[in-house]
Amino acid sequence: MQPDQLIKQIEFLKEIDKIKYIQRKTKLFNSDRNENDAEHSWHLAMMAIVLVQHANAPVDLLKVLKMLLIHDIVEIDAGDTFIYDTQKSHDNTAEERLAAERIFGLLPAEQAEEFIAIWEEFEESKTDEAMFARAMDRLEPLLQNVSNNGGTWQEFGVDFAKVYKKKQVIKNGSATIWQYAEQLLNDSVDRGILKKQ
Amino acid sequence: MQPDQLIKQIEFLKEIDKIKYIQRKTKLFNSDRNENDAEHSWHLAMMAIVLVQHANAPVDLLKVLKMLLIHDIVEIDAGDTFIYDTQKSHDNTAEERLAAERIFGLLPAEQAEEFIAIWEEFEESKTDEAMFARAMDRLEPLLQNVSNNGGTWQEFGVDFAKVYKKKQVIKNGSATIWQYAEQLLNDSVDRGILKKQ
Repeated sequence: MQPDQLIKQIEFLKEIDKIKYIQRKTKLFNSDRNENDAEHSWHLAMMAIVLVQHANAPVDLLKVLKMLLIHDIVEIDAGDTFIYDTQKSHDNTAEERLAAERIFGLLPAEQAEEFIAIWEEFEESKTDEAMFARAMDRLEPLLQNVSNNGGTWQEFGVDFAKVYKKKQVIKNGSATIWQYAEQLLNDSVDRGILKKQ
Repeated sequence: MQPDQLIKQIEFLKEIDKIKYIQRKTKLFNSDRNENDAEHSWHLAMMAIVLVQHANAPVDLLKVLKMLLIHDIVEIDAGDTFIYDTQKSHDNTAEERLAAERIFGLLPAEQAEEFIAIWEEFEESKTDEAMFARAMDRLEPLLQNVSNNGGTWQEFGVDFAKVYKKKQVIKNGSATIWQYAEQLLNDSVDRGILKKQ
């Protein structure tokens, strides 16, 4: 270990503190307080640990946790994009790629490459790990919105079809959790907290 | 999988949202905003991922991450205890044990047992994983206090000897990181942000 490796790592660890100021649109459970990206990332990691038995395929949980803990770090530079935003795509944008290069680039080269690769794998959502991680990322705000009488669905007037389309990717990570989530969406329509169209 | 396993797991995942309201004494980096337990847990997990090469012994990183992500969940019931509190011990108290049983007890039995065992392993700080995890838990507030011109050391009048004693356990997890931390403590005295006695 060269001492300057540790120095670089500490610089990175200080920089990512900024994720605690990135506000999401979604509120905490039964609350009107917005969630920030650090809280969100912690919660997704806990969900993955607790729910891993329901993954469609056996997954490398350590890799899933790395994905979930780092997936929003690029938002320090690129900001949070609301999932139902019609103007701006949530996918791996040029802005996010630059952010990944700058922020992960603070780390020693080999580690920077590893983190960028993990972030890309999550964004591409093709591997079993990425699909399961993505399912967690879709499930948390669904549970939050249900607890908040519709939450962002109500606040931004998002209808069932739009929500259903976004949430469907849960199925790619876990058919069991999707079954549960689909039921929640239907119940939400019945309860009048998610409009049918 | 019995469907009621998933229901129990979701109930647990909703309950632990409350960790986002538990305020620590320590502030965010270069900030006067208190950190909460979810943000803290996320940051420690990131530190473990980034710094694992410096552990004194090879560690099971997945286990370290589980420890760090769950280690403060008991504070939902037991509250945060300030590390330099002279009235109340920070160690595994009867109150924390009750909290662990209630909160982890929301999970299916086998999982509850696993989580309680991981939490106890962290608290006992005897295994390589627990000692490395503990080093992360001691390093983060040190870095934060240095960034905040002494932070809680200044606010609560804690001197070098008291801080040194608490921080020394970093050595059990990583001699390399301890060398760095010890230097930071000495520099802090020189800078006048940590009083010698």
